Amino acid sequence: MTQWDPTLVTRAYALALKSFEEGGCPIGSVLVRGPEILGEGHNQRVQKGDPIAHGEMDAIRNAGRQKSYRDTTLYTSLSPCMMCAGTIVQLKIPRVVIAENTTFGGNEDFLRAHGVEVTVVNDARCIALMRRFIAERPELWNEDIAEE
Amino acid sequence: MTQWDPTLVTRAYALALKSFEEGGCPIGSVLVRGPEILGEGHNQRVQKGDPIAHGEMDAIRNAGRQKSYRDTTLYTSLSPCMMCAGTIVQLKIPRVVIAENTTFGGNEDFLRAHGVEVTVVNDARCIALMRRFIAERPELWNEDIAEE
Repeated sequence: MTQWDPTLVTRAYALALKSFEEGGCPIGSVLVRGPEILGEGHNQRVQKGDPIAHGEMDAIRNAGRQKSYRDTTLYTSLSPCMMCAGTIVQLKIPRVVIAENTTFGGNEDFLRAHGVEVTVVNDARCIALMRRFIAERPELWNEDIAEE
Repeated sequence: MTQWDPTLVTRAYALALKSFEEGGCPIGSVLVRGPEILGEGHNQRVQKGDPIAHGEMDAIRNAGRQKSYRDTTLYTSLSPCMMCAGTIVQLKIPRVVIAENTTFGGNEDFLRAHGVEVTVVNDARCIALMRRFIAERPELWNEDIAEE
């Protein structure tokens, strides 16, 4: 059984909830190196009008330039889309802890095929928040994942 | 034979050259819809300390929120890395014109397997600029593609 830190799943959820309360997409992420938080963030599509700032991307951006990601773990409130999964592989982030993949998913096998250790937590808070978001704001959600 | 616009390859090169002259990574990109330039940009790792702002990502970010990318084409001075290739697939950008894949590449088949039309131009200016960059600043280049 893989070890993961429940406080970091809670932090990813809190960032997702913050984004939701701001009118944005409720996905939050935290990039850590051991006990150190390198960067955290949330989806910025609404807040910054930035279509590439998914939660994972915002956390990686906020971590700034890194010579290596080989000893990092990315916690994210929602399963990574193809953009974020590609980024994880490109940066050689070796571990991803996904709070939930019930409301969105499908790139777990891609990540594993590239050697990434994937842990899915199935956090009830994150599932409920995404379900509420998708029900209340389907157009925004579809825009964020480029579904028409 | 796929049609592509040589002036947009030249624009991607000019953006790459601008970034190089600023001390940054020389990769530039332009996102277009028909004759309209939606966004253009270049690698911002050095200029903004932003590790996710490859040229392609910067152009897509600068294009702002789009409901759909299905009628867009991305011109880029260098073959997309896995992050940028994942982004192209996630956003369903249907066409990518790559100025060169001599100095870096490998994700063309991934793109094609996901239905993306890939055209490689092999632009001599872009090849020469990247060769000069890799020779002069190997550490920065390795950092940008997460090679140690």
